[in-house]
Amino acid sequence: MESIKDIEKILQEISKTIEDDASYEQIMSSMCTPPPKIAREIAGLFAEKNLGDPGLFPQTIRLEKEVLETLASFLHAPKGWIGTTTSGGSESNLLGCWAARNWSQKKKEIEKGKIIFPMSAHVSFEKAADILGLQIVWAPLNDNYQVNIEKLNELINPDTVGLVGIAGTTGTGACDNIQALNDLAEDHELYLHVDAAHGGMILPFLDKLGLESPIFDFRNSNVSSITIDTHKIFGNIIPGGSIIFRSKEFTNTIKKKVEYLADSNTEQLTITGTRPATPVIAAWVLLKKFGEDYILSRVKYSLDMTSYIVQRLQEIPEIIVSFEPPLNIIGFTTNVMTNQELVEQLQQKGWQLSLYAHWIRIVVMPHMTKKAINHFILDLRTILKEGA
Amino acid sequence: MESIKDIEKILQEISKTIEDDASYEQIMSSMCTPPPKIAREIAGLFAEKNLGDPGLFPQTIRLEKEVLETLASFLHAPKGWIGTTTSGGSESNLLGCWAARNWSQKKKEIEKGKIIFPMSAHVSFEKAADILGLQIVWAPLNDNYQVNIEKLNELINPDTVGLVGIAGTTGTGACDNIQALNDLAEDHELYLHVDAAHGGMILPFLDKLGLESPIFDFRNSNVSSITIDTHKIFGNIIPGGSIIFRSKEFTNTIKKKVEYLADSNTEQLTITGTRPATPVIAAWVLLKKFGEDYILSRVKYSLDMTSYIVQRLQEIPEIIVSFEPPLNIIGFTTNVMTNQELVEQLQQKGWQLSLYAHWIRIVVMPHMTKKAINHFILDLRTILKEGA
Repeated sequence: MESIKDIEKILQEISKTIEDDASYEQIMSSMCTPPPKIAREIAGLFAEKNLGDPGLFPQTIRLEKEVLETLASFLHAPKGWIGTTTSGGSESNLLGCWAARNWSQKKKEIEKGKIIFPMSAHVSFEKAADILGLQIVWAPLNDNYQVNIEKLNELINPDTVGLVGIAGTTGTGACDNIQALNDLAEDHELYLHVDAAHGGMILPFLDKLGLESPIFDFRNSNVSSITIDTHKIFGNIIPGGSIIFRSKEFTNTIKKKVEYLADSNTEQLTITGTRPATPVIAAWVLLKKFGEDYILSRVKYSLDMTSYIVQRLQEIPEIIVSFEPPLNIIGFTTNVMTNQELVEQLQQKGWQLSLYAHWIRIVVMPHMTKKAINHFILDLRTILKEGA
Repeated sequence: MESIKDIEKILQEISKTIEDDASYEQIMSSMCTPPPKIAREIAGLFAEKNLGDPGLFPQTIRLEKEVLETLASFLHAPKGWIGTTTSGGSESNLLGCWAARNWSQKKKEIEKGKIIFPMSAHVSFEKAADILGLQIVWAPLNDNYQVNIEKLNELINPDTVGLVGIAGTTGTGACDNIQALNDLAEDHELYLHVDAAHGGMILPFLDKLGLESPIFDFRNSNVSSITIDTHKIFGNIIPGGSIIFRSKEFTNTIKKKVEYLADSNTEQLTITGTRPATPVIAAWVLLKKFGEDYILSRVKYSLDMTSYIVQRLQEIPEIIVSFEPPLNIIGFTTNVMTNQELVEQLQQKGWQLSLYAHWIRIVVMPHMTKKAINHFILDLRTILKEGA
């Protein structure tokens, strides 16, 4: 079955089988984006490498360390940081909450803990709290969709095992006031996890684009851990998650020794055992060979396109833009039909957007071309005209 | 940077950078194995697809369903089963234990639960218990390295949230007596999770090879969930995990609704949100296009090679084979040096084996050639002669 002819035939067949999946040309709702060709090549070429067995693949493990070093430097991690690549932001957030619970329970002997999440927190935090047996305390947002610091402060009590701040929320791209959260973490001696799954590969580069950049990272001395994904705007292959911890103090209670591997001193921070090396190798190439220009151009392009789309939306009388985009996420609504009706009608024309409680969301990614956007605006105008 | 010439140059450079990683020709300690060429092609070709956003990729989701249907049929899952692909056996085992805890707590109002693991359980269960806040109760093994049913029975108490059986342990390949565990689960109304990460793609095919096959699966009416991996002997690309649950009764307490995706009715059973589609597409091709012959030939080859290696080891006077291999895992030891010394000396000759408490482990996989094995035996004899 493995002749080249057979392989090509099967690949053609399978491409045909799934050709009705949405095409990225019309996907306006995803934080993922097609990876560059070289990352795809790596996905195939090194598919046999398993980062879960470091004794076998010490050189690839070295690349992982270098990738983590680069990510840690983006986040201004201090000497003594420790990190790991993961299966994605959800695993990273679970690891952060796990460390928060175990570290706090060890320190304060809390029996059944509570964890404070902003209302804007990703669904992975709900999963994490349930798994960890933590009670969620939801902190409301302010008018800028950031967590309301004053109200959050009132929610802290002796059972609190940690605070979570979001640097680039899923719904609006807002960055919480991490400096204020940092002060609260200091006052109450709390673990502070920052979810920068989305923002982590955008915010560190805003300065260089002449934009204001919030101090969301380890420069705040009480930030304990940060989630950062490479499979979002950075364009790595999935699964490209990572988490960086300030120090081993926070990982000592969650690491597990694995004795049956080639290197019998292996310690794992991850949920996973066996895990693919290809996203790490691809991240290494994109970081070390493509470098900062590659990142800056992707961030700049996405932010420029965000401004362009907002401008085009504002030209349409039936459209209300719901907030000024802090990053590359747009929310809009209309006064001629429900958001759900509009999303469904756009979907019939192939456009994929997502429905939030109070707006329709666009995530502006490097794969979105001006041509496609203009086409989208045209379709949107047509639908609104017919619906009016 | 994305010209074909540049890409080739970078790929050559990276191959050079990591060329000192172990080669599978000499890896005798891994449950992973290099995937077939077509799976590598798929890894690159469909790298942009994200199974975490099913509204965007409904056709690929259909393939996932078909893969799960096939795996469920291998495991004799009854009508009403539900499952998901995962990031690997570790996530699957965590999901199984999570469901066990939540299902039991709902049913019996247990405050702080205990879970019974065989001493042979994979490290992922230790992680799962810590994360879930469950106390581990370790059940000892019998002389065949299966969990000791009588002793396990004595460990069950009102706080027990579940039992775990292993169908193909990491250390010896032993399959626990799942039928006996099933009876205990029935008597005590307990959740029963079976870890067949390794054995799940071997045991269902033993019958057809004229070998005895234990009844380890859903034919036991109290088995609640089973972990099964496709990235082990089956040769899928990593991460190829899955879990099948007997019914929604067991997943109702762990599923999470995700509203911000293209399909706003998405429910996730996984820890992960974004997750790669390529292992699912590759599994589909290997299952549907390569089919049963492909699986049978891999299983047969690995078991035949296991017998061959055992025979060759038994010819060496200084070697003691530690147990009769139930599957494709061999344990051996020597009387002329410590196991650690022997593993290290073999490693100096490039051979990768793993060290267990009482033996050196070989996992016999489809990538191991007779030529390599003969070479290994020669090196082993030389080391033992020099060490004697």
